[in-house]
Amino acid sequence: MTVRAAVAGASGYAGGEVLRLLLGHPEVEIGALTGNSSAGQRLGGLQPHLLPLADRVVAETTAEHLAGHDVVFLALPHGQSAAVAERLGPDVLVIDMGADFRLTDPGDWERFYGSSHAGSWPYGLPELPGARAALAGAKRVAVPGCYPTAASLALFPAYAAGLAEPEAVIVAASGTSGAGKAPKPHLLGSEVMGSMTPYGVGGGHRHTPEMIQNLSGVAGERIAVSFTPTLAPMPRGILATCSAKAVGGVTGESLRAAYDKAYADEPFVHLLPEGQWPATASVQGSNAVQVQVACDAEVGRIIAISAIDNLTKGTAGGAVQSMNLALGLDETTGLSTIGVAP
Amino acid sequence: MTVRAAVAGASGYAGGEVLRLLLGHPEVEIGALTGNSSAGQRLGGLQPHLLPLADRVVAETTAEHLAGHDVVFLALPHGQSAAVAERLGPDVLVIDMGADFRLTDPGDWERFYGSSHAGSWPYGLPELPGARAALAGAKRVAVPGCYPTAASLALFPAYAAGLAEPEAVIVAASGTSGAGKAPKPHLLGSEVMGSMTPYGVGGGHRHTPEMIQNLSGVAGERIAVSFTPTLAPMPRGILATCSAKAVGGVTGESLRAAYDKAYADEPFVHLLPEGQWPATASVQGSNAVQVQVACDAEVGRIIAISAIDNLTKGTAGGAVQSMNLALGLDETTGLSTIGVAP
Amino acid sequence: MTVRAAVAGASGYAGGEVLRLLLGHPEVEIGALTGNSSAGQRLGGLQPHLLPLADRVVAETTAEHLAGHDVVFLALPHGQSAAVAERLGPDVLVIDMGADFRLTDPGDWERFYGSSHAGSWPYGLPELPGARAALAGAKRVAVPGCYPTAASLALFPAYAAGLAEPEAVIVAASGTSGAGKAPKPHLLGSEVMGSMTPYGVGGGHRHTPEMIQNLSGVAGERIAVSFTPTLAPMPRGILATCSAKAVGGVTGESLRAAYDKAYADEPFVHLLPEGQWPATASVQGSNAVQVQVACDAEVGRIIAISAIDNLTKGTAGGAVQSMNLALGLDETTGLSTIGVAP
Amino acid sequence: MTVRAAVAGASGYAGGEVLRLLLGHPEVEIGALTGNSSAGQRLGGLQPHLLPLADRVVAETTAEHLAGHDVVFLALPHGQSAAVAERLGPDVLVIDMGADFRLTDPGDWERFYGSSHAGSWPYGLPELPGARAALAGAKRVAVPGCYPTAASLALFPAYAAGLAEPEAVIVAASGTSGAGKAPKPHLLGSEVMGSMTPYGVGGGHRHTPEMIQNLSGVAGERIAVSFTPTLAPMPRGILATCSAKAVGGVTGESLRAAYDKAYADEPFVHLLPEGQWPATASVQGSNAVQVQVACDAEVGRIIAISAIDNLTKGTAGGAVQSMNLALGLDETTGLSTIGVAP
Repeated sequence: MTVRAAVAGASGYAGGEVLRLLLGHPEVEIGALTGNSSAGQRLGGLQPHLLPLADRVVAETTAEHLAGHDVVFLALPHGQSAAVAERLGPDVLVIDMGADFRLTDPGDWERFYGSSHAGSWPYGLPELPGARAALAGAKRVAVPGCYPTAASLALFPAYAAGLAEPEAVIVAASGTSGAGKAPKPHLLGSEVMGSMTPYGVGGGHRHTPEMIQNLSGVAGERIAVSFTPTLAPMPRGILATCSAKAVGGVTGESLRAAYDKAYADEPFVHLLPEGQWPATASVQGSNAVQVQVACDAEVGRIIAISAIDNLTKGTAGGAVQSMNLALGLDETTGLSTIGVAP
Repeated sequence: MTVRAAVAGASGYAGGEVLRLLLGHPEVEIGALTGNSSAGQRLGGLQPHLLPLADRVVAETTAEHLAGHDVVFLALPHGQSAAVAERLGPDVLVIDMGADFRLTDPGDWERFYGSSHAGSWPYGLPELPGARAALAGAKRVAVPGCYPTAASLALFPAYAAGLAEPEAVIVAASGTSGAGKAPKPHLLGSEVMGSMTPYGVGGGHRHTPEMIQNLSGVAGERIAVSFTPTLAPMPRGILATCSAKAVGGVTGESLRAAYDKAYADEPFVHLLPEGQWPATASVQGSNAVQVQVACDAEVGRIIAISAIDNLTKGTAGGAVQSMNLALGLDETTGLSTIGVAP
Repeated sequence: MTVRAAVAGASGYAGGEVLRLLLGHPEVEIGALTGNSSAGQRLGGLQPHLLPLADRVVAETTAEHLAGHDVVFLALPHGQSAAVAERLGPDVLVIDMGADFRLTDPGDWERFYGSSHAGSWPYGLPELPGARAALAGAKRVAVPGCYPTAASLALFPAYAAGLAEPEAVIVAASGTSGAGKAPKPHLLGSEVMGSMTPYGVGGGHRHTPEMIQNLSGVAGERIAVSFTPTLAPMPRGILATCSAKAVGGVTGESLRAAYDKAYADEPFVHLLPEGQWPATASVQGSNAVQVQVACDAEVGRIIAISAIDNLTKGTAGGAVQSMNLALGLDETTGLSTIGVAP
Repeated sequence: MTVRAAVAGASGYAGGEVLRLLLGHPEVEIGALTGNSSAGQRLGGLQPHLLPLADRVVAETTAEHLAGHDVVFLALPHGQSAAVAERLGPDVLVIDMGADFRLTDPGDWERFYGSSHAGSWPYGLPELPGARAALAGAKRVAVPGCYPTAASLALFPAYAAGLAEPEAVIVAASGTSGAGKAPKPHLLGSEVMGSMTPYGVGGGHRHTPEMIQNLSGVAGERIAVSFTPTLAPMPRGILATCSAKAVGGVTGESLRAAYDKAYADEPFVHLLPEGQWPATASVQGSNAVQVQVACDAEVGRIIAISAIDNLTKGTAGGAVQSMNLALGLDETTGLSTIGVAP
């Protein structure tokens, strides 16, 4: 099979990462690369790490340029995907790396994004119960947010097994690429190096309802989520430190058994041996997820921690994984669990 | 007043930081600098940032070398302070930057440190209710741990005002200097740059009982603490993200009022204006504490976040602040609230 | 003496650093803080590390707001200083941290800046032969560029002693704050962390003619300079690696003697002991300069290396040092040789 | 073809990187992994980024454990490779990533390494004139040092074309992984973050004679090299800033033509378009080399700059590239020119 893929938003971080992965995908041929302000420029100046594409020129993001592909990856600002997808036709596989089609509840969307809801697409987190079936053969995929990917994979086995009380506290540290490539003063290297700082505190972050949706779906009841994101002085990576009260009788053994069961056959999620903890450096550039879990008996809480690369498993790797499923390819094609470390 | 001060453990990070501050203290004259493996070396090779002391030679850490000073700062591995302090006599002000005399409960000490308890000294966190009185004129001071400093200052006003339920969840990111200068593989620059990783998860960190002690003392009941420390890719700084269920009826206003009241007259704790969040870079090299607090109404939790410099307010600055109080000097002498940023 | 000082450009990195230093200067009272796009904002949101000034509001940069001060520091984009200085009157000490008045040769200015030359002011690098005399009592001071400060202090003693051939090769690494606070894509944290990259290669950097001017002035003949600046993944600091052919007969001893002589009485320049090399971390936040020099006998070259903090000695510290000289204060008032490390 | 490969020194950075690359090599099966102090440990704890090998156990580095492989990669401290290679027999392809067999001149070896010379093997920098022929079918390969790789590729086309005078000045910045994984105080994250510092100044670095050997071999005359390495605050990458006097009549055009010719058919060396400069982030994790060159007419110098990943093209990628040539595989098999950025 040769799949012809286009990438809209090729000059940004998500677009660059999906191109990095597609270059190594044996079944994909890279077609149109489109952008807005970058249209007309050589990719070599915009994404200098993608040497094989250095001489490609970015086209404008129009339905014409995106036509004629089997798969179109959208890395667009939120609110723009619906219009583009509509013009691509129902037979093209459209994979939206933005937020537009992640939330199933229109009220959530409106409250957090302030615009009208475009709808919801099959959710591209195959490790969630039931998700793989919905992705097989799909023509539309909503790629999860990076924080929800990390937090959901850290916590869902506890909820699936009924081991955790319905309130989770999630504190996650993200590398700066999660904030995108548009230059803003607080994202300058001078500002971020040497600094840890929170943002979107108190429930305001747009990834909160997505976490609630994922965990509630698994638990069968509404899970409240207190989510605090922090910006860390590194380009890539998310470390999600999650906890919830354990229900009565939960032990380290029952907890570990639940995670063992959830992840025994997952190709990308690696439950670390006891005593070893996730590190973002270990998954840099890889689609792997490192997970560890412990029970703090003193306070009766489950502590579940995951590390991902926000751009790979958290965005573009998750997108390619879902593409593989939608196209009927082996889910791991073109994806790696090998990080670039140190 | 001229106070003659000695520093035991002058070649490490805590020792270096206390020397940095004492060099700028108008009432202090720096006397003996002692060490173990560094004895006999010029300080210029060990602490090349302390130019005025470059030609000073490190002496061995013995009671003889530490004798004859008004103040002795101990930056020693835990378990060594008691023996040294005993030989210094009761009239010398001994300020222990290690853990030995922080915990009041011998059982806590034995459980977390595995040795017999040396006792407890006045606790050098002046901002805690009642602490200043105990420090005035004291001859022995136990400097708090860096994480307990950050977490206690983030949370205690909520407990002092009876606004929070007795279980706190604390996730803190620390710069690598908190792990000391002894070279270990996981602390190599190659390992830490680009990586966030937790450690001591599940209640095992030695700073946990100290946090419980501080918060319980303020609350008048036992506060359970779930504490997860993480190592962040920066040399200095702690960002403590703390939360607890709000008791019924707490609003953003009542919460802010409690913090306003707690910190109105504190010279080093700065409650940020609403909407601005702490950043470790802002307090780099300074004794200031940035604090912000919010109420997440959706989940009914108080989120309190603080940023400190782990070596300054978290160790050596806190030590000098306590020294000032113990000696009857103005508490802020030789200390600054101005960070070195960017 | 109490000197009232204003800072134009208070929201940028140079402005922030001069404020940081002036806050610790015993003879200075901080007056107007002005800016352009930041006018009307609280300084606490713009420079959150300067807690004592958090509630000050930035005024617009106008002659009216800058009037009535003894000293005015200008941290403006190049080309704007002359007009402002003119309106301040001849009795006000005006210290320009920009480039406008650094070059004495109008042709150099026009070639590198593309506008007409505003003139030249006494040059604020007191360590250069003859510079102190010109600064004493001056009412106008041109603060040197950060790279020329580092490179000139590394090399001039070799030229002053006639030990080096008239062609210098200078490769310098700078922290990102040297590029300013205006957000540009290549200065994003995501881009700079983990990356070293050159810029302005081949003689094009505007600091090149200033280096030539300084070294030629000392040598009494034109010194050619090949200068390559590189951007390093750190917020602050310049490491300048400089070399030149040694004239015949130069030995390590004669070289060291020349540097010893040049820097024996300099309060801020520290010639390191043999075998120890400069490190930017050691001078972070300090006005110190670390210098080391060696003779590579095999190739007959002098290698001279310096480390400075680009914002302190390289900009704002140099400015305050010159202010002290101009006002007749002790040159070291309010300045420190103690770095914030690690 | 399936090639069975062993790696001696599997727990270090060079060993880890060669394993990372071999995991993606379609013709290689990974056999024994050996070490010294790490023997008996799971690789998952030592190289947590290599998930597919997490359960492999490190064996002791003995001839027995290394026997029975087609290729053996040696990542050993210098001085140990000869004895191991001898016992492996002449039919096994032995690729030494250490220094032992790089230098052809015994006097150079003795002067820089202080031991007796073990000999010299075909030199694994295929891009050097004549090198490919010597590597084809070889059974022993000496992998170049990381700095000599970067510097030789930056400069040799100028020497091959007779455009540069025989004295080169090389200033290179390296990520910390180049210094290895053995913990030393100056390599701690606390020390290296925020700091640039030189070392081995004045001709003493052991990579200097290797650079001289490479450039002299191309030039047909002895090239003097002034080399200053610096340690940069990043885990990976080398930026080599190299210059030499241009011979009379050299222009930007003739220079560019020489580089175009040298690299037109090289799969891994990318001569950047004019105006774009190398950045280490762009080659992170990739075997690519970014090169740019300019003529500074004012001073008559050629400035040639290269960026590599010190662990990939600078060590393990170069080793795999040479393995491919030695085995008669396509030179690019299992190697990528795609970096992991940002």
